[in-house]
Amino acid sequence: MSRSGVHSMAGVHDVDDSCNSSVPYRHKESDEESDDEQLAAGAAVYGILPPPVQTGDRVSIVAPSGAVNKNILQFGCEILKQWGLQPVVDDRVGEEWAYLAGPDEHRAQALVDAFNDPTTKAVICAGGGYGSTRILLLLSQSGLHENALQKKRFFGFSDITALHSFCRLLLPGYISFHSPMIASSYFRKGTDESRRALKLALFQRRLSSACPTLQGCCYTRLQTGNAAESGGKVQGVLVGGNLSLIAALVGTPWQEELSGKILFLEDVDEASYRVDRMVMQLVTSTGGRLFQDLAGLVLGHFGPPREGGRGPPVDSMFWFEMIGLPPSLPVLHEIPVGHILDNRVLPLGAVVEMDLDKAQLKVVEQVELS
Amino acid sequence: MSRSGVHSMAGVHDVDDSCNSSVPYRHKESDEESDDEQLAAGAAVYGILPPPVQTGDRVSIVAPSGAVNKNILQFGCEILKQWGLQPVVDDRVGEEWAYLAGPDEHRAQALVDAFNDPTTKAVICAGGGYGSTRILLLLSQSGLHENALQKKRFFGFSDITALHSFCRLLLPGYISFHSPMIASSYFRKGTDESRRALKLALFQRRLSSACPTLQGCCYTRLQTGNAAESGGKVQGVLVGGNLSLIAALVGTPWQEELSGKILFLEDVDEASYRVDRMVMQLVTSTGGRLFQDLAGLVLGHFGPPREGGRGPPVDSMFWFEMIGLPPSLPVLHEIPVGHILDNRVLPLGAVVEMDLDKAQLKVVEQVELS
Repeated sequence: MSRSGVHSMAGVHDVDDSCNSSVPYRHKESDEESDDEQLAAGAAVYGILPPPVQTGDRVSIVAPSGAVNKNILQFGCEILKQWGLQPVVDDRVGEEWAYLAGPDEHRAQALVDAFNDPTTKAVICAGGGYGSTRILLLLSQSGLHENALQKKRFFGFSDITALHSFCRLLLPGYISFHSPMIASSYFRKGTDESRRALKLALFQRRLSSACPTLQGCCYTRLQTGNAAESGGKVQGVLVGGNLSLIAALVGTPWQEELSGKILFLEDVDEASYRVDRMVMQLVTSTGGRLFQDLAGLVLGHFGPPREGGRGPPVDSMFWFEMIGLPPSLPVLHEIPVGHILDNRVLPLGAVVEMDLDKAQLKVVEQVELS
Repeated sequence: MSRSGVHSMAGVHDVDDSCNSSVPYRHKESDEESDDEQLAAGAAVYGILPPPVQTGDRVSIVAPSGAVNKNILQFGCEILKQWGLQPVVDDRVGEEWAYLAGPDEHRAQALVDAFNDPTTKAVICAGGGYGSTRILLLLSQSGLHENALQKKRFFGFSDITALHSFCRLLLPGYISFHSPMIASSYFRKGTDESRRALKLALFQRRLSSACPTLQGCCYTRLQTGNAAESGGKVQGVLVGGNLSLIAALVGTPWQEELSGKILFLEDVDEASYRVDRMVMQLVTSTGGRLFQDLAGLVLGHFGPPREGGRGPPVDSMFWFEMIGLPPSLPVLHEIPVGHILDNRVLPLGAVVEMDLDKAQLKVVEQVELS
């Protein structure tokens, strides 16, 4: 799509925008809580938001990726109990096979079982690590149905990025939560704000309450261009997650369309040249059009490069120039999301707005509560 | 393609095999040196082998990837001079831009200029590192012509893997050399056999002389199956190189077709889970058919995993089971190619034969000398 297509994203009523062809458009009929001025009666809605949990609900805990630290898992479950939830830890969470939380078949089936379990109200990943891309083919043959997906919110990040993409391929428009994971050391040592972010994403019915506005930084040189033309604000469907996983999905059936979207990226412990190479894979796989075709780019935490001396820190201005971002691309960076103690929550698949004047990322309340 | 298609690769006259549709088939008319029994008069030939260099020839030295160590480069040039060659070091080889040997435009243009230079007879990469995937789009717009390619042999490995793929996309059937690089520390400290391998690949006219048979190991459990049915031997076009690069090309225009091919892979300093993830990207990008559709798999050096404790060494039997190789797939491993001092040469794009009884990889002399 052309750059002009991105502009039209700023108009929420512009439902014919071809760049959103993969998102189901529906018209809301009624919602008592829909007092947000962005959501006029009859306005188009984007995305499918599963219902929140309520006090007393059972929630499924799964481990689709790396082996889980049981002590941290226990700590995380205690937090969930403090919030009035009943964590249902799948027996297979405790398995180990090399660096994985059990054989591929077990991890895949546990995830399917969690979504199909009528007694639980959400699916929370214990941890990331590695292993999700090993089960994508199995999941695609599993008989997991979109109806099961839309009944439950799904939580996780890092390696879980691949599963977020899988879910959205199964149910276009499905909103899933890039969030802290309860058996992660980042969660145990995490800030109160980070834990509160997970709690809100679990319990709040409205998307804007579940995912409060996040503050980032705006790279000065990039505040002009297309965002300036649209009043410093751009909107688009939020996609992305961990860069290593986004790159590892290129060329597979689970690569999400990026054109017209707001792309979020974070990573950790990666040398600058690796980050560079992964971004170049995204760029070349789009025929060199990636940064021209995105509505915007949101960068979370990348941390210092793993192998010092082989390049600058990722969040530096130098890196922006290395990657070759066009000056017209709206960019927010240092959004508090990623492998950090103050990891917040992002609604993948939802329409979000980048406000470059305020350097903020906020959700747009056009969702269908399923 | 089906597994049965692989079997027919063992018959060198089976030129209608659909798995080789990307390779130009031609019939040799005459070649004084073609006394190899594999090459009967009128037999089909695969691949395009540029002419060798001769004593006194000028050869182009380029740096398409990472910044070059000038001391090692000087050492490498001295070796070339000892062999009677005149290394022509492009001025841009000495440039530095972050971790790269100069800006993308310079590195790309230097490579194009080297192929277009009528006074030089081969193109040798100084080193790898990182940077080749950054210039692929530039190269595709450069006007580099297949006629220029087929006049010169091209040498390099590691990051240069992407350029080997680029060359073969430009000129299907082009045979390029996965080889030591003259400004690499592996070359300076390398074995006599490794340096001799580069020399042979430069000077020898016949492919079997340029790339002598290599000895590997045969994973016992995998000696049966399809290879056994074909007398312990399988043939196919050799593709591949550095796994990180092969994975980074997935989903881009420079991803080579793997079905029916013999896939070579090597890497270094990669944690097992990363190797696993990269292989899974190849697997999922082929719809899960990769190992069923390959004619064979050849593994070079992978070294110990970078991050200890996160998985077994790559060459171990355990790793084979992790990756899930089917028992019927012919596999040779520990071929002396990769980031090692005894790095030998492989002819990418050429038809090779895996002899599983002897655990050897040897070239098949069906080439057209251009």
